[in-house]
Amino acid sequence: MITVDERIREVRQLMKRRKIDIYYVPNEDDHLSAEYTAPYFRCKSFLSGFTGESGCVIITKSFAGLWTDGRYFTQAEKELEGTCITLMRLRQEGVPDPIDFLIQKTPKNGVLGFDGRVVSAVNARKLADALQKKNAKIRMDEDFAGEVWGKDRPYMPADRLWVLPVKYTGETAEQRIARVRAAMKEKGADTLILTRLEDPCWILNIRGNDIESTPVAYAFMLVTKTRVFYYIDFEKVSAEVKKHFAKYGVAVRPYAMLGKDLATLRKRTIWAELNTLSAALYSRLDSSNTIINEMSPVQQFRAVKNETEINNTVNAHIKDGAAMVKFLYWIKQNAERGDLTEVSAQNYLYELRAQGEDYIEPSFPTICAYQENGAMMHYNATEENHSPIKAKGFLLVDSGGTYKDGTTDITRTIAVGKLTAEEKRLYTKVLKGHLGLMGAHFLYGTAGNNLDILARRPLWNENIDYQCGTGHGVGHVLSVHEGPQSVAWGRRGNAVLEAGMIVTDEPGVYLPDKLGIRIENELLVVNGEKNFYGQWMHFETITFCPYETEAIEVSLLDDEELALLNAYHKKVYETVSPFLKPKEKTWLRSVTKAITR
Amino acid sequence: MITVDERIREVRQLMKRRKIDIYYVPNEDDHLSAEYTAPYFRCKSFLSGFTGESGCVIITKSFAGLWTDGRYFTQAEKELEGTCITLMRLRQEGVPDPIDFLIQKTPKNGVLGFDGRVVSAVNARKLADALQKKNAKIRMDEDFAGEVWGKDRPYMPADRLWVLPVKYTGETAEQRIARVRAAMKEKGADTLILTRLEDPCWILNIRGNDIESTPVAYAFMLVTKTRVFYYIDFEKVSAEVKKHFAKYGVAVRPYAMLGKDLATLRKRTIWAELNTLSAALYSRLDSSNTIINEMSPVQQFRAVKNETEINNTVNAHIKDGAAMVKFLYWIKQNAERGDLTEVSAQNYLYELRAQGEDYIEPSFPTICAYQENGAMMHYNATEENHSPIKAKGFLLVDSGGTYKDGTTDITRTIAVGKLTAEEKRLYTKVLKGHLGLMGAHFLYGTAGNNLDILARRPLWNENIDYQCGTGHGVGHVLSVHEGPQSVAWGRRGNAVLEAGMIVTDEPGVYLPDKLGIRIENELLVVNGEKNFYGQWMHFETITFCPYETEAIEVSLLDDEELALLNAYHKKVYETVSPFLKPKEKTWLRSVTKAITR
Repeated sequence: MITVDERIREVRQLMKRRKIDIYYVPNEDDHLSAEYTAPYFRCKSFLSGFTGESGCVIITKSFAGLWTDGRYFTQAEKELEGTCITLMRLRQEGVPDPIDFLIQKTPKNGVLGFDGRVVSAVNARKLADALQKKNAKIRMDEDFAGEVWGKDRPYMPADRLWVLPVKYTGETAEQRIARVRAAMKEKGADTLILTRLEDPCWILNIRGNDIESTPVAYAFMLVTKTRVFYYIDFEKVSAEVKKHFAKYGVAVRPYAMLGKDLATLRKRTIWAELNTLSAALYSRLDSSNTIINEMSPVQQFRAVKNETEINNTVNAHIKDGAAMVKFLYWIKQNAERGDLTEVSAQNYLYELRAQGEDYIEPSFPTICAYQENGAMMHYNATEENHSPIKAKGFLLVDSGGTYKDGTTDITRTIAVGKLTAEEKRLYTKVLKGHLGLMGAHFLYGTAGNNLDILARRPLWNENIDYQCGTGHGVGHVLSVHEGPQSVAWGRRGNAVLEAGMIVTDEPGVYLPDKLGIRIENELLVVNGEKNFYGQWMHFETITFCPYETEAIEVSLLDDEELALLNAYHKKVYETVSPFLKPKEKTWLRSVTKAITR
Repeated sequence: MITVDERIREVRQLMKRRKIDIYYVPNEDDHLSAEYTAPYFRCKSFLSGFTGESGCVIITKSFAGLWTDGRYFTQAEKELEGTCITLMRLRQEGVPDPIDFLIQKTPKNGVLGFDGRVVSAVNARKLADALQKKNAKIRMDEDFAGEVWGKDRPYMPADRLWVLPVKYTGETAEQRIARVRAAMKEKGADTLILTRLEDPCWILNIRGNDIESTPVAYAFMLVTKTRVFYYIDFEKVSAEVKKHFAKYGVAVRPYAMLGKDLATLRKRTIWAELNTLSAALYSRLDSSNTIINEMSPVQQFRAVKNETEINNTVNAHIKDGAAMVKFLYWIKQNAERGDLTEVSAQNYLYELRAQGEDYIEPSFPTICAYQENGAMMHYNATEENHSPIKAKGFLLVDSGGTYKDGTTDITRTIAVGKLTAEEKRLYTKVLKGHLGLMGAHFLYGTAGNNLDILARRPLWNENIDYQCGTGHGVGHVLSVHEGPQSVAWGRRGNAVLEAGMIVTDEPGVYLPDKLGIRIENELLVVNGEKNFYGQWMHFETITFCPYETEAIEVSLLDDEELALLNAYHKKVYETVSPFLKPKEKTWLRSVTKAITR
């Protein structure tokens, strides 16, 4: 394998040869998936050596930069060390957004290059508009990362689809197609292009296995008033799935045909979310069509879970909670010996989860990070590179499972030995924020960005931030991160919270080279009383696992927080204890008994 | 005077004669001012009898509705009683937005009518786009309210302009024009149309007297790369102001000429905020122009106060605080006798404020509302219609002054006698919310909608809402309500808080027919520490007046809230006491001494 600097050099040679001044390598795949993608698409990681799931690379003659966000700063610093690549910290003062950087740095009369299959129509248009003023050009058919990668590039995944029965989803594909068509009719659209990987899975009650830990398949969908076209490599479609499709009148077409099919659309009113439609595909649509560039209706449908999905999800969380409690008990029994490692711990947790009924796979790669490794929000311990767990400080474990009945995502920060006063104080501040959001009580119309401060406040009051959102939506046997809802501040998090949505609640503290603390539960949005002022709403916690009582500084909690904590622990015991062995049960009772001052 | 029902009947006759199916009467003036306008423009109030400063009227053959927002529900119910007009409660479930209602109710092939001078280009375009699908038409040259009003309609105001010296504003008109031109250059605009009444006042360091309690003049402005045109009735321009304009090269043009001048613009890149540009004026621009429809740069400039403006504003608040303390002392001395009225109290407060140096006028009509009247957020006591102040319960006083050095806005809810336990509890909940926002600590990038919950939470936790924003910006010797910043939830309040901005902090409880409680201070946004996470910010309170200690239920406050309250009261005493008479001073000391459990 050649080094990162050599790869950059090869890209620069290609740039010179093809007369390109500045080259852009985003993180996305052909579907503009923002985070988890198949290895085939990880060009940014191939070129930079940075393995995090967010960011992009920009290369000029004299500069090579990797942009990534706050969750990955510490990790990126380490992984970029010794390379020619500059770390560009997204959203930090003085750091331009990558698209703005491209606009600024493309020279007058110059040429910007990228692979138009992995750049959204929105970004491509923004770039084109801005560069026109400079008389600069765009070439969007250049996959330099792919060329340098050559025969070492991983294959496109090709696993089989499978059907997720209605007993888990609560609706047939027929019903879901009808809902999609009703939304199209309301919007006045005759054609809907679906590019998000989760959308066809949700509509058709199928799942795939193309991305690690995310049960989706690389496929597109086109819905018209009378037809449903599904674009996928045929080898992924088994006889059983073929029958399932036939039942619902779904026409299967080759994955690569979508572009050609789009080129035949004329005078249509097409609903397409242009930030998830690639510039390459978008270029196949001509101006006789009217484009409705709005969020896909499926994203909203997916986010609002029906009763069957909710009941199933809660069931998955009970199994998951039992696995987590067993894990915590095991850690507590064994940590003192000092022979655990991040890898042995995470492997044991994988094993425990796998015992759950209907378990499929982890819902994302487990983050099992001892002490200072926890400061890297998306740390990944490997056989080659991991830390032993000593008998002091914190072990941060962020993990989850995909079961046939639901998807889980939970973080616990575990005291594996003696804690310092600062560690306890910070843990308690994080817990205060976590309980603050959990206890939120709000009117319909509230969005995540109205509530974010409830989680962030105890840390912001100490001039500490966690540089990421407080919470994200969770898919139903789909992506562990899903929109449109989120809990975040600034410009993000503005989707209204609807009853049936799930959001995570995961504030944290990340002190580079020192420690990481995160506490995460999943919260279900539910309706409360309706009165003169409107519909009142609150959260119901669907994660069942105790907090780290050894790390709680009770004097820092107010009465309301203490009551919330005790009520939650009581619920955890009642819910999970039936699935435990006697010793685990005894331990759970001891850590969930009411805390008093 | 004819009755409301007769007026509606006359409008319906005009509708029939001119073949109009549905007629729309908004609240705005020719500048799309959303709230305070000259009496000449109050067509909605003339037709409906509803005197609140927000809302609109829609009339069809069989329906007449008045839309208004939560601040006015109780008032509107009373004022509409016995008329044919239906109250439409804005933002309540099942109540369509008025523009959507117009779209729904205009019949196929029908005609919608309004006066295009008082409807924004944005709304007119939205209506036109939607009605086109129904083959319905719009007639925007019909001022039916004006026709029915006839010779009783008030005149357009015609008071003189005056110059606000640089010692108050900190910048010359030349400097401000230069800043505007720099913003235009950055945006690529060669022409800027300013319609908001405050914008030309701010740029030119002038003030007017066309709207009660708001020192602005009815005028438009057009800024090009080399010229500044100011459209106003000539009689408003004194010799002194003429000289001032000449000094800065401002060309004065007749108010009514803007439309004709716009019609001469060709091939320009015009920056105009289309929600404050009337449909009538917009129709004068042709398609050879490129329109940049973004917020006027002046609104942002005005909102971020410079050091001179801040120092002056603080000075105005000290004078204002002294007047308020004298008022509170006077109420406390006299309320027991039981012979005060809302009107006598507000008149005395006007008198006290008028004694302040550089006092101009109230910054808005004082709301002096005893007990249940306080439930009407914008209640207005008049000689003809007001309540006596009995020796029990609350008197809510929301008032402010415009001084040459600044604008103030303060609300205190005063115990005028014995309080019930519920009154104390609710007062304390409001105070908790008020202190919650006051104590906010946040990172740069935070908007008002991220912080709103801090004020609303103690009430939302009891399923009570106050149905309006928590806070608004305040102009500098301009409107008491100004944007772009605000503290609100849902879709509002999304402007980033910048150091130098002012917002009010005014949560409340409004129980119809029972009571109203509101506590309001002005907060200045200031920078704190800057560290690894970014620029930390907080608020500095610039209102100096004690809260109602008789209404505080100390057991409901947590330690943090109590500390904030005591520190504030200490600051109030230190700031205001030098301006008081001995007895007032003694009283202030007694009500500002530290509260302990």
